[in-house]
Order: sequence, then C-alpha cells, then structure tokens
Amino acid sequence: MYTLSELQKAVANYMNHLDVDGDPHSLYEPIAYSISAGGKRIRPMLTVLACNIFSDNALQALPAAAALEVFHTFTLLHDDIMDNAPTRRGKPSVYGKWGANAAILSGDAMMIYSYKLLQQTPVEFLPAVLGCFNYTAMTVCEGQQCDMNFEKREDVSMEEYMDMINKKTAALLAGSTIIGAIQGGADPQNRQHLFVFATELGLAFQLQDDLLDAYGTEEKLGKPIGGDILEAKKSFLLLAALQRADVNQKGEILAILKDNTMAPADKISRVLALYNTLGVKEMAEAKINEHFNKAMEALDSLDAEAERVAPLRELALGLLGRNK
Amino acid sequence: MYTLSELQKAVANYMNHLDVDGDPHSLYEPIAYSISAGGKRIRPMLTVLACNIFSDNALQALPAAAALEVFHTFTLLHDDIMDNAPTRRGKPSVYGKWGANAAILSGDAMMIYSYKLLQQTPVEFLPAVLGCFNYTAMTVCEGQQCDMNFEKREDVSMEEYMDMINKKTAALLAGSTIIGAIQGGADPQNRQHLFVFATELGLAFQLQDDLLDAYGTEEKLGKPIGGDILEAKKSFLLLAALQRADVNQKGEILAILKDNTMAPADKISRVLALYNTLGVKEMAEAKINEHFNKAMEALDSLDAEAERVAPLRELALGLLGRNK
Repeated sequence: MYTLSELQKAVANYMNHLDVDGDPHSLYEPIAYSISAGGKRIRPMLTVLACNIFSDNALQALPAAAALEVFHTFTLLHDDIMDNAPTRRGKPSVYGKWGANAAILSGDAMMIYSYKLLQQTPVEFLPAVLGCFNYTAMTVCEGQQCDMNFEKREDVSMEEYMDMINKKTAALLAGSTIIGAIQGGADPQNRQHLFVFATELGLAFQLQDDLLDAYGTEEKLGKPIGGDILEAKKSFLLLAALQRADVNQKGEILAILKDNTMAPADKISRVLALYNTLGVKEMAEAKINEHFNKAMEALDSLDAEAERVAPLRELALGLLGRNK
Repeated sequence: MYTLSELQKAVANYMNHLDVDGDPHSLYEPIAYSISAGGKRIRPMLTVLACNIFSDNALQALPAAAALEVFHTFTLLHDDIMDNAPTRRGKPSVYGKWGANAAILSGDAMMIYSYKLLQQTPVEFLPAVLGCFNYTAMTVCEGQQCDMNFEKREDVSMEEYMDMINKKTAALLAGSTIIGAIQGGADPQNRQHLFVFATELGLAFQLQDDLLDAYGTEEKLGKPIGGDILEAKKSFLLLAALQRADVNQKGEILAILKDNTMAPADKISRVLALYNTLGVKEMAEAKINEHFNKAMEALDSLDAEAERVAPLRELALGLLGRNK
C-alpha cells in the first residue's frame, strides 16, 4: 500500500515521462504542450488510489490512470475550439496557439494516444477496463453536447443541469475511480460504493467550481472572477437564482445578462447583488455539502480497512478544500 | 468459408443495424447520418475477407470490421471541417449540415463509438486487435497532418507524397486487413504478406483516385473533375508533372495554379494540356500497375488455399476496376 504523497509522485513522474513525439512533429507538439501544462491530476490520482485500496500493486494502474488524464486533457483541447477560447489557465490554448485545424487533429491524435496508454493495462483487466473507459468517454461527450444545447435554451431546469454536470464532469471521475478499482480486484459491491463516491464527489466539485466563479478569488480560480456571469452561462447559481426570484427579479437578471452595453464589472456586481439577495451562495454551499457528505458516506460503506481508504479520503477532502 | 457476396451482405446488414442513438439525440444524429451515407465498405470487407482466409468463422470479425468503417467515417467528418467542405459525395457534410462544433463533438463521439465496437472483439484477440487499431488510427492522423503541412509547402518531394498517402490511406487498409487476419488466426508470415498486399493495394487505390480526379468522369468520381487542380493540391499528377517539366513548363504550371482570375474550366484544361504533354497520365498508370502487381504478388505468397484467397482477390480487382 502506498501513501497519498507516494502516489502523487508516481503519477507526476509517469505523466512527465510520457513519450509523446513522432513524425510529423507538428502533430505531437500540441499534445506534449497540453499534457505538460499539468493541473491537479485528479483523475489519474483517483485511479491509482482506488486500486491502492484493494491491491499492493497500485502502480499497475498507472497506464490506465494516464489514459484517463490524457483523455481529460483532450476534451479540454476540443472544448476550447467549441468555446472559441484562446487561453486556458492563463496560457494560450492549443486552439489559440496553433489554430482550429491543429487543435482538431492533435486532439484526435490525443484521444487515440489515450487508448494507446490504455492498451498497456494488464490483459486480465483489459476487457473490463476498456468497456468502462468507452462508456465513460461517451458519457463525457453526451455531457458536452447537453452543455452546448443549453446555450441555445432559456428553459433549462435544475434537474437537467445536474444531469449535465453528472455526465460532463462527474462521470469521468467515476470512470477513473472504477477503472482503478477493477485493477485492484474490487468486488461488485465495493465498485458500486466507489461509483457513488466518485459521482457525488464530482457533483460537489463542479458545484464548487460554479460557486468559485462568482465568489472565489482569481488566484484560486485561475482566471478572472465572474466569467460565467459575463457569458450568461447556465450555472447552478444562475438556475438557483432564477428558481428563487420573483417575476421582477427574474426580469432584472435576464435583462442584465442580455445587456451588451453594460460594463463587465457592473454586470458582475449587479448580478452578484441579486445572488446575495436571493441567498444563492448558501444554496450552493448546502448542495455542495449534501453531495460531499454522500461521497463520504459511500467511502465509509466500503468493505476495506480504514487505513487503506485514508489516502483516497485525503484526496477528496483536499479537492473540496476541507483538509485544513 | 463465405463467398464475397455473402460477406458483402453480412457487412451491409451489420452496418445498417448499428445502434447509434442515445441522449442527447443531437450528438448521435450526425453519427447515424454519416454511417448511413454508405460507401463501398472497403475497410470492413478487407477485415472479414482476411479473416475468411484462415477461419470458417469470419463473422466473428464483424464488430472490429464495423469499428474500422466507423473510424474511417469519423476521419471524413473531421477532415471536412479542416477542408472547409460543406458537401461530401453530393450530400451536405456533417460540417455543412450542422456546423463545426457539432462536427467536432459528434466526430469525437464517433471515434469513441468505433472503440465500443472494437470492444466486442473476442477476448483472446482483443489485445492484439486493440494494439493494431491504435497504431493504425495514429498513423492515419499522422498522414492527415502531413497532408495539411504540404498545403503550406512548395517543395514536396514524390517520396514525401508516397509516404503521406501510405499513412493517410494505405495504413487503414492494411490495419483493416491485419485485424481480420489476427481474428482468423493467421501466422506472422501470412500477416506480413497481407500487410504488404493491403499497403500496396492502398497506394494503387489512392493513385487511381488522383488519376480519376483529372482523367475520370464525374459519375465515377462522385464529384466534378479537376478539383485537385483547382485546389492546387499536391497530387501524384502535379508532383510528377513538376518532376518532368522543364523550367518554362514548371513556371507555367505554377502560374496557372496560382492565378485566381482564370476561369475554373480554363484552369483545368490548361493544366491537363500540360499533363498530356508531359505524359503524366502514363506515369500514374505505370505506378498504379506497379503497386497493384506487388499487391497481387503478396496475395500469391500466402500460405493458404487459392480458393480461400479468391474472394479477397476479387474485391481487390473490383476496387481497381480490373474485374471485367
């Protein structure tokens, strides 16, 4: 069994030593650039930590763990084209740096590369791991399509929103965790508990991201505050506000969001003022707690030694900023 | 053992009954649209025909065969965005019908769908089949990147061109054939012969496509003649012409290709006149024969009953229009 920090080092080391070059170099350069941009490596960490609960050989899950991270990074690459986003976390996106065509094709190659990593999974686990990976990957695409469809709709319900983030964000965390559990030899009951854990964690994580976009700091968010408001994005906060607002407040929110003449800072502060009046922040916090608690309960339900579950719990607490 | 026409029916039937729908429908609709557009199903036919040489259970290769066809169709979908092509074979392309974002995302889902089909491969063959599929898919991306790089270059050599079509076109035919051979239980020597067969067939097939673009009929080509000339595409014909041309002829060809004021029909007829003077058509025909003969020799080298190889030979002859 490994500690959290041992596995963090192993994942970082594995990701840093991926061999992503070939001919023509122009195809592989954007892939290496995206992967080296880093991030918290949450998905591969979930894979090896889940494996670590049931097996002393958690490092056998590293290729699949890396496949999940590469797949995640690929989705960002194509999302940036669809969102017309020239930057990501303060650096030029592949789309911004090399253009749409390079981002499309290198993104495609990146997805294939994730399957090349997956192919290194020990043969006895390969069919189950490949099946789970494919299901997860397709679900992420479904989530992205829902998100795109929402842009053109005015009647998105909270239920539809939760289903969308379940598919777009939580499913990949769940898939990452299950793929680790499979390679650890977890039984179906334990896999099911881990599925609930990672799904609920993913929902809490995405809702917290929505919350930070309005109430966080630029440092913590990695980009300026209020982006969702300026894009009139159907986030949890906006949908919760519209749910709670009376007719006048609803009209006011929609009018502000649609007003292209208003200065961005004004737009953000006026929407935030309405969010404050409506208690939207507290609603989000309550919802995050609800999902986070369900995630923790699922961990507690595992048929495994507490000591072996501890590193995964530690990661989950850290992810939601509750490890202090 | 099955006949060519039995396998053609089986492939058509399998492709027509693929279950490509889900939620949201908007993600899956372009996938179903692309797959139902049809085509000659060359790649899945190569898979089942190669399997058919060594096994009486060629139908076991149908899921992988379909995976290769779906992957091929996915590449067309993304290529159409990169080429800014609103139509494909006389019908709106996915890009033309639904726009770039839908084409990107449904294309991604389509690639994942190809892996979902692949996952149905009998477990004993799965690692080898997945490995070959990944290698092949990455090679196709490399070929597409080379093709894109060529657009910005004036000094593309014939050797580079042949390497590009090897990767972009021939590799997928080779991969399709090998994946069938693996599932038939072919030994390494026979796989190697089939690799040479399909690669050479792929080169002949692409060169014939280049030839038809200038010397074919609109009916046979499925689009107007001369498209490569109007796009100044570095095809075999253009590179061969530039290779044979003297300084004056070379200057003339390049001037015509760059002239944006010239009527398209004039452009085509003037370039064709130069091609005729330089004997480019005969060069292409000789090259096609050379590769086709190598393909046939590789088939003759197989350690298998002639009767079992006959359906694959028949397909190859038909592909190059030599079955009359």
